[in-house]
Amino acid sequence: MDLATLLGLTLALTMIGVSVVLSGGSPNAFYDSAAITTVCGGMLAALLICFPISTVARLPAVLYRLLFPQVTDTSSLVQRLVRLAEIARRDGLLALEHRAEEGEHPFVRLGVELAVDGTRPEMLEEVLRSEIDSMARRHREGKGMLDQLGRSAPAFGLIGTLLGLIVMLGNISDPSSIAGGMAVALITTLYGAVLSTASLLPMAEKLAFYSRQEMLTREIIVRGILAIQAGEHPRLIAQRLKVYLPPAARAQLERGTA
Amino acid sequence: MDLATLLGLTLALTMIGVSVVLSGGSPNAFYDSAAITTVCGGMLAALLICFPISTVARLPAVLYRLLFPQVTDTSSLVQRLVRLAEIARRDGLLALEHRAEEGEHPFVRLGVELAVDGTRPEMLEEVLRSEIDSMARRHREGKGMLDQLGRSAPAFGLIGTLLGLIVMLGNISDPSSIAGGMAVALITTLYGAVLSTASLLPMAEKLAFYSRQEMLTREIIVRGILAIQAGEHPRLIAQRLKVYLPPAARAQLERGTA
Amino acid sequence: MDLATLLGLTLALTMIGVSVVLSGGSPNAFYDSAAITTVCGGMLAALLICFPISTVARLPAVLYRLLFPQVTDTSSLVQRLVRLAEIARRDGLLALEHRAEEGEHPFVRLGVELAVDGTRPEMLEEVLRSEIDSMARRHREGKGMLDQLGRSAPAFGLIGTLLGLIVMLGNISDPSSIAGGMAVALITTLYGAVLSTASLLPMAEKLAFYSRQEMLTREIIVRGILAIQAGEHPRLIAQRLKVYLPPAARAQLERGTA
Amino acid sequence: MDLATLLGLTLALTMIGVSVVLSGGSPNAFYDSAAITTVCGGMLAALLICFPISTVARLPAVLYRLLFPQVTDTSSLVQRLVRLAEIARRDGLLALEHRAEEGEHPFVRLGVELAVDGTRPEMLEEVLRSEIDSMARRHREGKGMLDQLGRSAPAFGLIGTLLGLIVMLGNISDPSSIAGGMAVALITTLYGAVLSTASLLPMAEKLAFYSRQEMLTREIIVRGILAIQAGEHPRLIAQRLKVYLPPAARAQLERGTA
Amino acid sequence: MDLATLLGLTLALTMIGVSVVLSGGSPNAFYDSAAITTVCGGMLAALLICFPISTVARLPAVLYRLLFPQVTDTSSLVQRLVRLAEIARRDGLLALEHRAEEGEHPFVRLGVELAVDGTRPEMLEEVLRSEIDSMARRHREGKGMLDQLGRSAPAFGLIGTLLGLIVMLGNISDPSSIAGGMAVALITTLYGAVLSTASLLPMAEKLAFYSRQEMLTREIIVRGILAIQAGEHPRLIAQRLKVYLPPAARAQLERGTA
Repeated sequence: MDLATLLGLTLALTMIGVSVVLSGGSPNAFYDSAAITTVCGGMLAALLICFPISTVARLPAVLYRLLFPQVTDTSSLVQRLVRLAEIARRDGLLALEHRAEEGEHPFVRLGVELAVDGTRPEMLEEVLRSEIDSMARRHREGKGMLDQLGRSAPAFGLIGTLLGLIVMLGNISDPSSIAGGMAVALITTLYGAVLSTASLLPMAEKLAFYSRQEMLTREIIVRGILAIQAGEHPRLIAQRLKVYLPPAARAQLERGTA
Repeated sequence: MDLATLLGLTLALTMIGVSVVLSGGSPNAFYDSAAITTVCGGMLAALLICFPISTVARLPAVLYRLLFPQVTDTSSLVQRLVRLAEIARRDGLLALEHRAEEGEHPFVRLGVELAVDGTRPEMLEEVLRSEIDSMARRHREGKGMLDQLGRSAPAFGLIGTLLGLIVMLGNISDPSSIAGGMAVALITTLYGAVLSTASLLPMAEKLAFYSRQEMLTREIIVRGILAIQAGEHPRLIAQRLKVYLPPAARAQLERGTA
Repeated sequence: MDLATLLGLTLALTMIGVSVVLSGGSPNAFYDSAAITTVCGGMLAALLICFPISTVARLPAVLYRLLFPQVTDTSSLVQRLVRLAEIARRDGLLALEHRAEEGEHPFVRLGVELAVDGTRPEMLEEVLRSEIDSMARRHREGKGMLDQLGRSAPAFGLIGTLLGLIVMLGNISDPSSIAGGMAVALITTLYGAVLSTASLLPMAEKLAFYSRQEMLTREIIVRGILAIQAGEHPRLIAQRLKVYLPPAARAQLERGTA
Repeated sequence: MDLATLLGLTLALTMIGVSVVLSGGSPNAFYDSAAITTVCGGMLAALLICFPISTVARLPAVLYRLLFPQVTDTSSLVQRLVRLAEIARRDGLLALEHRAEEGEHPFVRLGVELAVDGTRPEMLEEVLRSEIDSMARRHREGKGMLDQLGRSAPAFGLIGTLLGLIVMLGNISDPSSIAGGMAVALITTLYGAVLSTASLLPMAEKLAFYSRQEMLTREIIVRGILAIQAGEHPRLIAQRLKVYLPPAARAQLERGTA
Repeated sequence: MDLATLLGLTLALTMIGVSVVLSGGSPNAFYDSAAITTVCGGMLAALLICFPISTVARLPAVLYRLLFPQVTDTSSLVQRLVRLAEIARRDGLLALEHRAEEGEHPFVRLGVELAVDGTRPEMLEEVLRSEIDSMARRHREGKGMLDQLGRSAPAFGLIGTLLGLIVMLGNISDPSSIAGGMAVALITTLYGAVLSTASLLPMAEKLAFYSRQEMLTREIIVRGILAIQAGEHPRLIAQRLKVYLPPAARAQLERGTA
């Protein structure tokens, strides 16, 4: 579970509530059903025009992944790959078949399976890399949706405010109602700005962060599987994969494999 | 037919209507002929200055393609290419001549035709790739027009509002008419923002999506035709083209060609 | 003559006029000499600070080229190059000397001249490509000037409006003059927005379009001249140059050279 | 200690204070707790959604590094590397072990240690370069945090102003309080603009400047260590490393090594 | 002396003065010491936070270079290089030593000196290119400072206006003073917009123009010196360097060296 995201979202809401109370307003004044219709309806409409339905349907999964990301510990991953290399060197590639089943990263499983099946190295690399490419494309689409929502939120906020102003200026029989009308019109702009600045755009950044991390994980796996298939010495594989780890993890690994 | 685009456009209009009614306004207050003249006339004018007439004339075709896109199922395309490869291997390249006529993707037909005519592989690839390039250029121009319209819509909305404000402030004999004048002036900004945010810019994104998909389709075809011409084994061709498919489609294809 | 640009500029002006009349204003209210001084003077000043005088002096020529562009028909250009190749093959390179004089594209003339003079192929290509580079640099500067004007127009519009507002707010003895002062102040913003959105920025795009087209034309010529100098078979030259043409023109050329 | 940054921050605060006094206002009018809650709380919230907690926790360290940067004098670094090369040539690589301990740049120490341990040149370069890469990634994240804060500050400033306006317009029983309400609402926008323009965005630029400088330092070290390991002549190493120095430092070094 | 820049700056000031007079205002109304403090102080503060003091201290030199640029006539430079090549071919490289002293471009002098000293070609090129790189870095920093000033000017303009508005709204005992307060508040925005649009950003563009030109000059010199060192025939050197000249200068040079 990504605590930082949850903490950030909670903090943003709390901070707005506190700030409303501090300036002497009532939270009720900030609920407006027309504003919610305009901003959320408009954002969904623009999303549907931007992306095919099959992509839009993946949005809940994208948000779930954002709150419950799968983070792989790269230094224990390198250790597992080195252990697989040791088994392969001792007992042959076929011995990996059952070892890779037990709670392994699915990408390690796929690589081992292909290697065990005797896939040629070029084809093995091509298949694994095309998996990474298609994952990168899926991640880009996920981030693309959040970016698009983050861009359209303030625009629909502005549209809602314009709608409210035009309605207010059109039936202006009672001058005393102007201030109230203005307040309601501005709520839509507020919704759009809060959604975009305090959730959607930062969430797209966090998604890109996790995507970069998962790409690194898979790059390590591709290199590891290819080295195992080539029958390289486990120590050499450890040395080669270690350069992908942060300095601290590297030192720890050296103690582990020494 | 692209349901998502249609759904998105409908939803955008509905959401604006609902939001107007919720805030107590009348839809009639949002129709203004001067505003339509300014925004739509201005957008067309800027489009004509940006692009040559021959490109602008293709705009209706671009919009039609957006609503009724030609989507090729890549996994059945790979199956068809593998079948053509089997025929070519069994009966020779010439046997493909009549097979490729029946409801095939026009780009497959072109490739088969060139191969049957005995075009040298380099020339075959050059011709097919230059077709893809000219298609990409056409797609870029189509997206470029929607982008330009999406950029100029809010600008002409602002111009219309400035025009309205200057007229209103110029003949301000009657102070009670100010509010109404403001309302009318703001309608142009609303038109520009809605056109841009809720249709033109997202439509340009969807166009780019379809363009990327069609590029992938044609890349598969080029690789397939070249492999068929080189007389490669159908199974090898299947393996090579499979890496372009999404994981799910790949598994399905494996069952199909097994 | 580029009809689309002329049509676009006319349409933009007409549309603004119609829109003013529709909203009940008088066109006279939109003429203000201080606004013209601020926007046009400011744009010229910024242009002079951005570019050296020799570049700024080319602005009228750039605008003339925009309205009266030299468009080369690429398919007849390919036909002429193929004909030159036939002559060169039949009668030798020297026979091209007088043939290339008659109404040929100046870049074809330059290439033929260099080839007839016995320039070595590498040097011939280097000279022709450096000509293309210096043309590309000139085009970029032309587009750069229009882009700079298009960017500074709204900025000077805003500056003029600020000037007007400060003057108006400074001598506000008569409250009834406020509305008129506001109207005059806003005219500068309107000028800037119209100049930028409805002429300068789209004109920069059109310039880029013509530049891309002329680059393609010259690329075809370089390839053609080099192939002629190398003594390649005219049919092979035709095949090689054809891939630069749009599909329709290619089919037409095939009938022409068959 | 980076005097320029400190001077800049002090100057910005002083200038704002002077400007407030010059325009006849009281500094007290510019303190508002709701505004501070909104802008600072919002910025922290968006930062937490953007980055994982482990990155956000490094923010104080990033700010400390900005005020107290570690600047390496490249010309004395080149001299030290040349001296190490002389020792290695005279007494062998192993003689470097104790020499590199005394107050050396940690990256020089790491390189010497690896060279003394007999690491192969390719592996040595790979390890050093992966250190540089991971440092570059850390620097990019640091700059990324300041950029994100600099982008979100004005956005939360706007959000605070909208909150204030809506509260003010909602309970507008007393028209005389409008001006005061407006003043308070605008303070949030002021906070956001000052934080972004006068500290966060320029600080991100300064961070990028120091990062480029440290990259150059480490590039010199990698080249130097590799040349020392290869046993190159110290004079040749001096010549090769000198090209990374500014002209003035180069001349000075020539006198030093002559 | 760069007349265009001077002319542009004068024109911008004149145009603003004329426009103020045309709209019936007095130039005195546009002087405000608090506004100058805010905008200029703020810009300097942000500059100091962005760049180290040593870079900021070079700002006056950058502005001087902008008004009095060193422009090298590339066609006479090519002629001088060809003459040096003739001397080197006739009397040997050493004969160049005294010839290059007389009023030559300092970069030509550096190159000749290195060649006369017997520096190996690779090292000669590396030293000259690293000089070009460090010049490019200095130019980028100079342009970077003007860009940063041009970006921060309108931001501090806005900050000054917000300060003014808050002060004005805070002590609003006398409603008749509102207009005057607004006028003063807007002056800061005007200062920022004029500084940015009418001087700083265009000056950064001009700087980039001169930088590109000086890079081209030095590229010609590097190629020329290397060819002289390699003992190439002067006519060949002339042919090779000519391609860097504009077409007109090329024709003129041909007459000169014929």
